[in-house]
Amino acid sequence: MRDNLRLQPPGGDGWLAWLRHYRAAWLSGDLVAGLVTAIMIIPQSMAYAMLAGLPVQIGLYASLLPLIGYALFGTSMSMSVGPVAVTALMTVALLGPFATIGSAEYLQLAIWLALLSGVLLFVLGLLRMGFLANFLSHPVISGFISGASILILLSQFPHLLGLEQLPDSPAALREQWTPVNTLVLTMGLLALIWLLYARSRLSGHLQRLGFNPALAGVLARLAPILVVALGLVISLPADLAGRGVPVVGSLPAGLPALAWSTPDLPTLKLLLLPAALISLVSFVESVSIAQSLARRKRQSIDPDKELLALGAANVGSALTGGFAVCGGFSRSGVNIEAGANTPLAGVVSAAVIAFILVTLAPLFAALPLVVLAVVILVAVAPLIDVAGLRRTWRYDRREGATLVATAAGVIWLGIEAGIVLGVGLSIVTQLWRGSRPHIAVVGRVPGTQYFRNTRRHLVEIEPRLLAVRIDENIFFANTRAIERAILQALRDYPDTRDLLLILSAVNHIDSTGLDMLCELSQGLRDKGIAVHLAEVKGPVMDRLSDTDWIEELVSGVYPSTHIAFNTLGDNPGAALDQSAGRTA
Amino acid sequence: MRDNLRLQPPGGDGWLAWLRHYRAAWLSGDLVAGLVTAIMIIPQSMAYAMLAGLPVQIGLYASLLPLIGYALFGTSMSMSVGPVAVTALMTVALLGPFATIGSAEYLQLAIWLALLSGVLLFVLGLLRMGFLANFLSHPVISGFISGASILILLSQFPHLLGLEQLPDSPAALREQWTPVNTLVLTMGLLALIWLLYARSRLSGHLQRLGFNPALAGVLARLAPILVVALGLVISLPADLAGRGVPVVGSLPAGLPALAWSTPDLPTLKLLLLPAALISLVSFVESVSIAQSLARRKRQSIDPDKELLALGAANVGSALTGGFAVCGGFSRSGVNIEAGANTPLAGVVSAAVIAFILVTLAPLFAALPLVVLAVVILVAVAPLIDVAGLRRTWRYDRREGATLVATAAGVIWLGIEAGIVLGVGLSIVTQLWRGSRPHIAVVGRVPGTQYFRNTRRHLVEIEPRLLAVRIDENIFFANTRAIERAILQALRDYPDTRDLLLILSAVNHIDSTGLDMLCELSQGLRDKGIAVHLAEVKGPVMDRLSDTDWIEELVSGVYPSTHIAFNTLGDNPGAALDQSAGRTA
Repeated sequence: MRDNLRLQPPGGDGWLAWLRHYRAAWLSGDLVAGLVTAIMIIPQSMAYAMLAGLPVQIGLYASLLPLIGYALFGTSMSMSVGPVAVTALMTVALLGPFATIGSAEYLQLAIWLALLSGVLLFVLGLLRMGFLANFLSHPVISGFISGASILILLSQFPHLLGLEQLPDSPAALREQWTPVNTLVLTMGLLALIWLLYARSRLSGHLQRLGFNPALAGVLARLAPILVVALGLVISLPADLAGRGVPVVGSLPAGLPALAWSTPDLPTLKLLLLPAALISLVSFVESVSIAQSLARRKRQSIDPDKELLALGAANVGSALTGGFAVCGGFSRSGVNIEAGANTPLAGVVSAAVIAFILVTLAPLFAALPLVVLAVVILVAVAPLIDVAGLRRTWRYDRREGATLVATAAGVIWLGIEAGIVLGVGLSIVTQLWRGSRPHIAVVGRVPGTQYFRNTRRHLVEIEPRLLAVRIDENIFFANTRAIERAILQALRDYPDTRDLLLILSAVNHIDSTGLDMLCELSQGLRDKGIAVHLAEVKGPVMDRLSDTDWIEELVSGVYPSTHIAFNTLGDNPGAALDQSAGRTA
Repeated sequence: MRDNLRLQPPGGDGWLAWLRHYRAAWLSGDLVAGLVTAIMIIPQSMAYAMLAGLPVQIGLYASLLPLIGYALFGTSMSMSVGPVAVTALMTVALLGPFATIGSAEYLQLAIWLALLSGVLLFVLGLLRMGFLANFLSHPVISGFISGASILILLSQFPHLLGLEQLPDSPAALREQWTPVNTLVLTMGLLALIWLLYARSRLSGHLQRLGFNPALAGVLARLAPILVVALGLVISLPADLAGRGVPVVGSLPAGLPALAWSTPDLPTLKLLLLPAALISLVSFVESVSIAQSLARRKRQSIDPDKELLALGAANVGSALTGGFAVCGGFSRSGVNIEAGANTPLAGVVSAAVIAFILVTLAPLFAALPLVVLAVVILVAVAPLIDVAGLRRTWRYDRREGATLVATAAGVIWLGIEAGIVLGVGLSIVTQLWRGSRPHIAVVGRVPGTQYFRNTRRHLVEIEPRLLAVRIDENIFFANTRAIERAILQALRDYPDTRDLLLILSAVNHIDSTGLDMLCELSQGLRDKGIAVHLAEVKGPVMDRLSDTDWIEELVSGVYPSTHIAFNTLGDNPGAALDQSAGRTA
């Protein structure tokens, strides 16, 4: 296993570790993967720029420096960063209220959003705040991505019909329908059928034709570039643009200029919340992609360095007039399958795209927009996580409801409100769970040192010793419930003289819990009942050790329930508990 | 103990249980306590009405029906409800922005606030939502009360100086200072000295004069009525009002009329948030007072019925033109010490106050306001919970900081913002705690069936079996930390073939945690490491039982770590762990 690890580039071993330990054997994989990924991301990047309400070349500009920025700091050996659907949607949704989509002002805001988000991510990385992403639970992330994907799909319908925007009614649609719309819709449906076929069947068919499985898989993932090429081949000679089919339009040749500009203070304030949101989502998405890739190659990643790398990628995007970027699932998948060994593959991709920008870019001007819309549809539809919803719902209704509420919130209330709603619900669910603690009266399994719930097992109890196991951290949301349960147990066993609290499952006690335990113990002492503890965890005991409770109100602390029973029980051969088996 | 309980009225045994089981032996206690409490609450109720920005008689009106309403539904045998300092402050702070304090419109809003809050409390009681109060942790409650008390003290300084409001500068104060102000300040200081003496020494001095301790204690608590009487005795013949000393002013004789009026919809909306806040605080305060009183008499209370009772009390207050009420700490203390056995004592208090209203009320018109201000100062100052802050801070810095932030929030940001800030902080603290789980590699204590942390104890381990105990619920905020800790343990013990996860302290696993465990187990299986579980709690196992994780990725589930070690260990006489004692 160790040798196995050594064959792989050592992710996370310091700055540019992959480059310092670079091996000649990795080069061919990186070169091929870089080329293949570049071909795959050209249509995607243009499509996501369109989705973000930006000129399509912005998508290509955002595919240059981010790959180099990520290579400088990143710890994933195979993740590919660039424009992705969700950040594109967030860009248009968050900036839409502040500028006319498509205007120069809007483009400037999008660039600044990437810049600010990059700076924010980098600073969070320096502060090692990667743990912040922990506050997004899987149901919230899944609900957010699903909701955003539905919004994205809806946003592409007008393009599929060749319209500026959907008319209000079917009647209005019929009224403004022309043969051009029919043409666009036909092209769109053909492209859609091809891409769906490529996604589900092409790889198998290629394998039957003699391609090896890996190559067949990669070729099938490149299907979108064929649609783009076909679109161009049809569009140019047939002059689709002249016939009224919406096309990409002017697309300047050449690389973007490096430019640095900073927003003024009011704009900065305006952009702060959107930048924070897009940073959070980018980080969570990228880290989960990087983690799943690393797991496949038995590598590991460092979330704090990922923050730095994503920050550098976004600043890089902004420097060349690009928009917000993050790790992409499908582009990373192609990258790893095509043989990427290190972030050098990404640098190669950037070089290929730069070459395309310098040479072929103007050709794309004739590309019908419907082709890009179909590329988006096919890329985004699988992100609607129905399987995840079903699995989550089956495991825990409340978490399933959180997932649905987050998705619905994103669709109807907007991206910010949806995320806030989801995070709020998952926190409330967690507190609610903690507020309903499981508390068991336990007895000894006859002839052993084990103690089990009297309601689930046939066990021995001591007549004057009541042993209660508290199966939850004791904190403000459950102190009353725990107190009530203990008092109920005391009413069920009215002869109790010694109460033994078994804290094996209590990992912390907050001050509200401590106050409750003090008052409870005081009240019990007044009634002549002594309180003892067993199996207190080290960290809990450390904190309790100089409180009044332990010093004055607790009669004894025992390392195990067994020892406590032997010490406190007054007849070692106790009778079987009468309540045993009373309930299932 | 049982007999002892039978001697007490059975709190919480159904509607009006105390009345249905009433015993003649309780009557004298209830009569005396009712009378004494009435005498004590007359000055306090007037003072709190003044604090709330209302005519002083409103405080007396709010001391009639609430006591009867509480008696109908309440489960505390000794709590006394009526105007209290914190709800008075909340009334003026929450309604101040909507109407001129002292205007008829303001009075109407205050009455409606009590009505709405009463309805809300009653409905919450019917829905059995008493658990809502659990979201206020002790540090938040303590911080809120302390912050509110500081605001109350500051609000009384003008009255102490006989001014309408404090001037902006000491120079302005000197300029408008007159002999009347000196007179008011002198009276105030004398009253203050007397009340402070009464609070700290009077009871002891009375005992030395031959009074029995209980009587001495109650008499000392009645000191405010003496100040009021003295104030009247001086004020009436000296015509202090005529000399410019601020006095209570006109005070109508007679009982308030019963009146029912409902606000219109816009006003209702305006009052909803204030009513919700005042309800929450009233409920939490009342329940903690009722609980501590019940503990003293070994009785119990029912929080859901307390909601009904508080709701009835507030509706009752509104019906007679009173303002919001809740259980009061000092009035309840006098009530229980004077011998109250049942809520009948409260009904007696109401009757006494009604009698005073009909007969003596007009006399109070001459009472200098400074006397009431001093009553407030002395009653409220002890609510600033410095001891609680010190104790909380010592136990947990983070909770201490939450307490201080809540108090500061209440003082500088306002009551709503302070409460929201505190609740938010205590939730974040709780999550943060859960996000830093304690995870231990454990080994067997030689010759026993016990397993302990290898870093704290000298224990035996099996060379190919790594036993890891997870001391925290597994949920979204800590899945990454737990995964990291397990992977680190696997790096520390590179020969591991079997990983045993001991879940004795895991009370639930959420779907984010389950996803992590699935991916982790999958990754380990690819490396040839099998995952086993031990000591899974019943409720956790119930939920896990039909997941893919347990069915496909977990190799075995053992009831105890001991059995797992015997089954999975390949040499039972394993060597002592080399890492033992490596760290403290």
